[in-house]
Amino acid sequence: MNKLIYHFGPQNNEGDASMKDKLGGKGANLAEMSNLGLPIPPGFTIATNMCSYYYTHGNKLTADFEAELLQAIHRLEKETGKVFGSKENPLLVSVRSGAKISMPGMMDTILNLGMNDEVAESLAEITSNPRFAYDSYRRFIQMYGSVVLEIPAYIFEDTYDNHKINHNINNDSEVTTEILKAVIQDYKKNIHRLTGKEFENNLTQQLIKAIEAVLKSWMSPRAVHYRKINNISEQEVLGTAVNIQSMVFGNKGNHSATGVVFTRSPADGERKIFGEFLINAQGEDVVAGIRTPQPILAKEEKDGTSMQELIPKAYEELISICAKLESHYGDMQDIEFTIEEGKLYILQTRKGKRAAAAAVKIAVDMVNEGILTKETALLRIEPESLNQLLHTGIDYSTKPEIIAQGLAASPGAATGIAVFSPYDAEELAHHHKVILVRNDTSPEDIKGMHVAKGIITARGGMTSHAAVVARGMGRPCVCGVKGLTVNEKEKYFITSSGKKIHQGEVITLDGSTGKIIVGTVNLIEPQFSPEFETILKWADSIKNLHVRANAETAVDARMAIKFGAVGVGLCRTEHMFFDAEKIPLVREMIIAQDYEHRMKAIAKLKPLQTADFKELFSILGNMPLNIRLLDPPLHEFLPTLDQDKENLARTLEVPKSVIDHRLHVLHEINPMLGHRGCRLGITYPEIYSMQVEAILEAMWQLYSEEGLNCNLELMIPLISDFKELEIIKNIINKTINEIEKKYSHKFRIKTGTMIELPRAALTADKISPLVDYFSFGTNDLTQTTLGISRDDTGSFLGDYIEQKIFNHDPFITIDEEGVGFLVQTAIEKGKKTNNTLSFGVCGEHAGDPKSIDFFHKVGMDYISCSPFRVPIARVAAARSKIINQ
Amino acid sequence: MNKLIYHFGPQNNEGDASMKDKLGGKGANLAEMSNLGLPIPPGFTIATNMCSYYYTHGNKLTADFEAELLQAIHRLEKETGKVFGSKENPLLVSVRSGAKISMPGMMDTILNLGMNDEVAESLAEITSNPRFAYDSYRRFIQMYGSVVLEIPAYIFEDTYDNHKINHNINNDSEVTTEILKAVIQDYKKNIHRLTGKEFENNLTQQLIKAIEAVLKSWMSPRAVHYRKINNISEQEVLGTAVNIQSMVFGNKGNHSATGVVFTRSPADGERKIFGEFLINAQGEDVVAGIRTPQPILAKEEKDGTSMQELIPKAYEELISICAKLESHYGDMQDIEFTIEEGKLYILQTRKGKRAAAAAVKIAVDMVNEGILTKETALLRIEPESLNQLLHTGIDYSTKPEIIAQGLAASPGAATGIAVFSPYDAEELAHHHKVILVRNDTSPEDIKGMHVAKGIITARGGMTSHAAVVARGMGRPCVCGVKGLTVNEKEKYFITSSGKKIHQGEVITLDGSTGKIIVGTVNLIEPQFSPEFETILKWADSIKNLHVRANAETAVDARMAIKFGAVGVGLCRTEHMFFDAEKIPLVREMIIAQDYEHRMKAIAKLKPLQTADFKELFSILGNMPLNIRLLDPPLHEFLPTLDQDKENLARTLEVPKSVIDHRLHVLHEINPMLGHRGCRLGITYPEIYSMQVEAILEAMWQLYSEEGLNCNLELMIPLISDFKELEIIKNIINKTINEIEKKYSHKFRIKTGTMIELPRAALTADKISPLVDYFSFGTNDLTQTTLGISRDDTGSFLGDYIEQKIFNHDPFITIDEEGVGFLVQTAIEKGKKTNNTLSFGVCGEHAGDPKSIDFFHKVGMDYISCSPFRVPIARVAAARSKIINQ
Repeated sequence: MNKLIYHFGPQNNEGDASMKDKLGGKGANLAEMSNLGLPIPPGFTIATNMCSYYYTHGNKLTADFEAELLQAIHRLEKETGKVFGSKENPLLVSVRSGAKISMPGMMDTILNLGMNDEVAESLAEITSNPRFAYDSYRRFIQMYGSVVLEIPAYIFEDTYDNHKINHNINNDSEVTTEILKAVIQDYKKNIHRLTGKEFENNLTQQLIKAIEAVLKSWMSPRAVHYRKINNISEQEVLGTAVNIQSMVFGNKGNHSATGVVFTRSPADGERKIFGEFLINAQGEDVVAGIRTPQPILAKEEKDGTSMQELIPKAYEELISICAKLESHYGDMQDIEFTIEEGKLYILQTRKGKRAAAAAVKIAVDMVNEGILTKETALLRIEPESLNQLLHTGIDYSTKPEIIAQGLAASPGAATGIAVFSPYDAEELAHHHKVILVRNDTSPEDIKGMHVAKGIITARGGMTSHAAVVARGMGRPCVCGVKGLTVNEKEKYFITSSGKKIHQGEVITLDGSTGKIIVGTVNLIEPQFSPEFETILKWADSIKNLHVRANAETAVDARMAIKFGAVGVGLCRTEHMFFDAEKIPLVREMIIAQDYEHRMKAIAKLKPLQTADFKELFSILGNMPLNIRLLDPPLHEFLPTLDQDKENLARTLEVPKSVIDHRLHVLHEINPMLGHRGCRLGITYPEIYSMQVEAILEAMWQLYSEEGLNCNLELMIPLISDFKELEIIKNIINKTINEIEKKYSHKFRIKTGTMIELPRAALTADKISPLVDYFSFGTNDLTQTTLGISRDDTGSFLGDYIEQKIFNHDPFITIDEEGVGFLVQTAIEKGKKTNNTLSFGVCGEHAGDPKSIDFFHKVGMDYISCSPFRVPIARVAAARSKIINQ
Repeated sequence: MNKLIYHFGPQNNEGDASMKDKLGGKGANLAEMSNLGLPIPPGFTIATNMCSYYYTHGNKLTADFEAELLQAIHRLEKETGKVFGSKENPLLVSVRSGAKISMPGMMDTILNLGMNDEVAESLAEITSNPRFAYDSYRRFIQMYGSVVLEIPAYIFEDTYDNHKINHNINNDSEVTTEILKAVIQDYKKNIHRLTGKEFENNLTQQLIKAIEAVLKSWMSPRAVHYRKINNISEQEVLGTAVNIQSMVFGNKGNHSATGVVFTRSPADGERKIFGEFLINAQGEDVVAGIRTPQPILAKEEKDGTSMQELIPKAYEELISICAKLESHYGDMQDIEFTIEEGKLYILQTRKGKRAAAAAVKIAVDMVNEGILTKETALLRIEPESLNQLLHTGIDYSTKPEIIAQGLAASPGAATGIAVFSPYDAEELAHHHKVILVRNDTSPEDIKGMHVAKGIITARGGMTSHAAVVARGMGRPCVCGVKGLTVNEKEKYFITSSGKKIHQGEVITLDGSTGKIIVGTVNLIEPQFSPEFETILKWADSIKNLHVRANAETAVDARMAIKFGAVGVGLCRTEHMFFDAEKIPLVREMIIAQDYEHRMKAIAKLKPLQTADFKELFSILGNMPLNIRLLDPPLHEFLPTLDQDKENLARTLEVPKSVIDHRLHVLHEINPMLGHRGCRLGITYPEIYSMQVEAILEAMWQLYSEEGLNCNLELMIPLISDFKELEIIKNIINKTINEIEKKYSHKFRIKTGTMIELPRAALTADKISPLVDYFSFGTNDLTQTTLGISRDDTGSFLGDYIEQKIFNHDPFITIDEEGVGFLVQTAIEKGKKTNNTLSFGVCGEHAGDPKSIDFFHKVGMDYISCSPFRVPIARVAAARSKIINQ
């Protein structure tokens, strides 16, 4: 048999990072850190071949191995100056499993191995901390009992709890040394009762049995199942290694300490050590917050509390280790250390968690410092986290009272008085900041949503009307709040826990987390640093995907350009219809019982549409404006309030009963699958003709007045068959020809179609010769492919995510297997019959980094998302390019 | 150049049926009939190569050809004894186009060519029928003018109409010879005015120009367009032939006659000549009905009016020709004949149209007579036509007053008084036959639908609630009646033409044609002849597909078995919930705000479900009963009437406001894509558990009481991911295990899933290892693949079919390209990972012959349709097997 044991540590290091096959991930990394010359507590790794040998040779350890193990222990004793079982300076070790691939299904750690009654007593004396010594001993027996002896953990927990109950103790910190000693006695009794044997006092036997337990855990049902479901073959990972490492103590007196240090500021990324430590303490004391930790770095007005001042030698060493680790790993590190009687030990180093602003600054700084390439810097930034930099956030450190939790539907935070109708919102907004609270919203609420600082709806998912409109407007929004009952009539809401809020009471919502808070809270304003601009510039220079925005108002379009969009990928004409001036005309158009009445309304609408388009084209200049012809189910525009119905009846000069009847006729059971999209163009060609006329008139005005050659993309929605497209194109081209003839001017127009129904994707090869581009409407494609209405997921989506049927909300992250497959199919088929076709996405997924990665891989040309998500999408697109290169 | 002209006729026949490439379809058939020795009026065909020659040689006829043409005319003159332009016996001919493939876009026929003023005058004398002669001349000039000279037809029509108006004449038969002569003069003036030339008096020139017109029509925009949209390449069909045939006259006196004969009875299929004729008449006179035609066959009490008695020689010849033609074509023939001065001519023979009963009898008889094989006999029966034999029909010969036209949603006819609410229906049904008229129906209407003889809804498509339920119940139903306004409150309806029908007025509906009729009409009762049984037996012996029925009531299940179903392929448990006893409990279950309340309702429902299942199992015996667990959107069960809400509030002991609130919460915007199918099982596992318990209890009772080993197929609806199936199967298996343990009995159970969402089809390889069978829910798969709600197609489906976007209503005939592709994908993927998987269809398409052909081809194992469509499906399945062999 080959060499079985590999030492690590400053003196005897036998491995490195490349030896994961033999040493497992953990063992190889311990060796790597040793190679860097870091003062890590020494130890040794039993190689993975021991594991295979164990299983192929009768599942037991050999005498040879045991001899080698004893030698390794001796070597470790020499190196640490500590001795297994010594009363003066006992060697305690941790025992951990560690396969090549991290495998959560395996054995937990055993700490403090090497203790028995005598060692515990010695330790109590040496540390002058008997409570620590006996608590460590108690923990060791419990870990050993459950992991090695396989006694259910609850038996120990019950025993411990019984003692606490008997002494009327609530908090672990109140447990005295005497009680701990009694618990230890009971633990031992448990072991004897359940195994028939005494607790193992022989330290070498403790170690051998712990090693066997690790090896056995390799074939435990949990570990086998874990490998099976993750498709990890046993051959491939070879077996587990076993790591035995000496323990160090920061609580051995005033020359001992423990602490945590970040190599740069995790809050803002400043290039300056940030950390805290405690004299004569153990790691957990820093976290527990019982004592106030002291700073590592001295303040300007030095006060003698910092590590720099108190332990300057260890401090200097730590600083140099920080520099070394950061440059070795090329990233800001979060380092745990312990000082045992003046000697510094590094226990762990890992990538430091950081706020978004810090992540951006650190990444840019490290590129400037020559540590990172631009590509690696971009990979360091989690695109989703950039949301923090784009929206107002909430300072949760003040512990505000959270009264409900919903979906984080549109990011940002807002405080204001609760109002329960769009009319109240409009009125009260003159003197107050208002938060609009509704069961759900409809187009009638648009004006109220506009004046509100934030929107809350009890129902609806991430792509409900409220969520989509709020994101478009950049208003924070919380949707789908489970258990929230909104009484719009009596103007109050009750949360699931019974909290009742009436109109006029102040609430705060956090659209980035979905939380609803009572009262005002400290808000954190968004930051847009020069480093952020730099990151975005780098992203643009790398990414393939063009990032556009969905926009239909001047405000949105300007915002989109400010955030770096290179065009508008979706202008939903219907969203333009929702303002006060147009909605009555739109209703008139829809309610019209015949062609003649419809044409009257259309004639009035046309100049208004022209003005809208002109403004957008003018903002976009040379950039493309992708206008989608009328798409939504008509019912979305219809009045539901009696007053609106009466107004409409007056306008149309018909009795209200006629309006009621038409509404009844237009009512649809499943409007999402109803008379919408190009079906409107097929049945009412005059509506599409009017829209095309309005668009071209706008283009002509800009051309003749300013010489601007507008860049139009004209998009036809909800195609399921190429024949629909043929008919609609005839309608459109007729109008285009007429207007081009009228002005003797050739407009700059591309024609495209939405691919948003499974049938369109499956027959894309017939559709593609008719268009210049496909734009994937992945919202609707998700609805139809999965058979799920985005407005109606509230009642079951929670269960679906909880039971892991969905890994993500499929309306946030694209379902690659179903919806993604159709997208890919459409691209392949589309290219086959039209090799100049281009591809874009305008569904909500276009702003989701995971989905963007998919879109990059399938060869999309552009993605179009909400203006506020443009920066996120730019970074995500660059990351995808880098990852998939 | 090759031979250009081919003669046909008894004496000089040069072609046969195989020469379609050269002679076109019409020419080849005329030659074929000549070969049979039939007395057809002789003529000749100008071969298709003339057409290609014409287009490749400057678009004109050559002198060579004209010489050949004159020779052919001379030969025809000899053969007929008539001469072009002769005063004694003028030869008149017809000129017709005729390509290899029938092509409606091409030239119409010109009849009576060979006339000018002199010939007309002669003809008037010879026939002693100047009106006939001048009317033929007028018609010839009009046809020649519009077809050859390309003068718009309306110019001639206006001229003719003006003369009638001037003489105050309404009816063509009142136009005198003098008027006709004046019209002819004006026609000639029109021609001179519009072409600058006189009407062509030279008969040979008439013929040459007519031939050129036919050749030109080959490249007319209409013909080119027709070939394009039908994917007919010009090369493939070579060009058009031109047929020139001598005309014969049945109105040359009392030795002339004309008539029509069927070789067997088209009404009942009896093997007996059936036909009518008129002495001294032209073909159109028989049809026009001005004179009463006389029978061909003598009646038992001979009265001297029959052809058999009056013209025995021609009669004998006709009888022998009938026999010859029937045996040659192997099918009942519809033959047109003319007797010119004692000589019989056959003008046309074609497959005779026949009633369904006749078709069945003829097919069976012909097999017995050795004329047909069973396979050919089955191909002769249009499966859809069998509907007539299964349902009551309407006798339209009495010309009932049709007031509206809707979709033929459920076949059969019924007469009764119109009622406008389900409650009125129940009450009035005690003393009347009632027809329930609604805007649309909901589960609350079920009882009213049950007592009604027929159902009419203004809205909804072929698979709307009303249509599906009506077909299931076997009630005739007309849905989606365009322009029908139903005022349920004031209890009347108005049709698009303004006809108003109040409650209590008698109406009739024809669910086989979609017609609504005012008053009573003669109904034709269904026939189930021994021949029909024979056809079905033959079909069963040939087909591969098993035919099952969808059924959830004892009545339906018995009907299904009577009609030959071999099991139930879909038992929709929710349909069992709609009866008066269960619906309140179902509502209680749904409205329940927590588990405890839900369990109370479930406990009450369970025994009722057990009883339902027991009855069905008992009827089915050994045959499989495929039970689908609860599927529909819960809202379908919810009360909409205040009274029902109050009842529910009382049962649940809560205020009505609680019910209103729950209803509000449960309301879905797109229920089809909402909380339904297996999603109910995931969120409320207790409902599925109860259903499985109820089913197994029923099976156990039948086993313990009667030893019946029930054959259960348990089906899980609306799967989109295999993980749903895993969870639901756990729920189901837990219950099965408990009950099997309880009774120490192993039940006979297969588990299956519906494939009814695109994602399920696309991921079928992951789903299939978990089940024994796939059942395709092609209704829902159509809804999601095409993005069309079956309940909301009314507003645009008409336009879609009219504009040929859809060739068929996709809810009636499966969309092979989209939905069918997904079905095929699911079968292929399903087989790959589970080679014992079986496949069925339970959507409405399973009863549609075209769709059945598709299901046969993709390798489905069974189809399951409405009980009433089982015979149709059996025949269709056999035909598919035969056609695709």
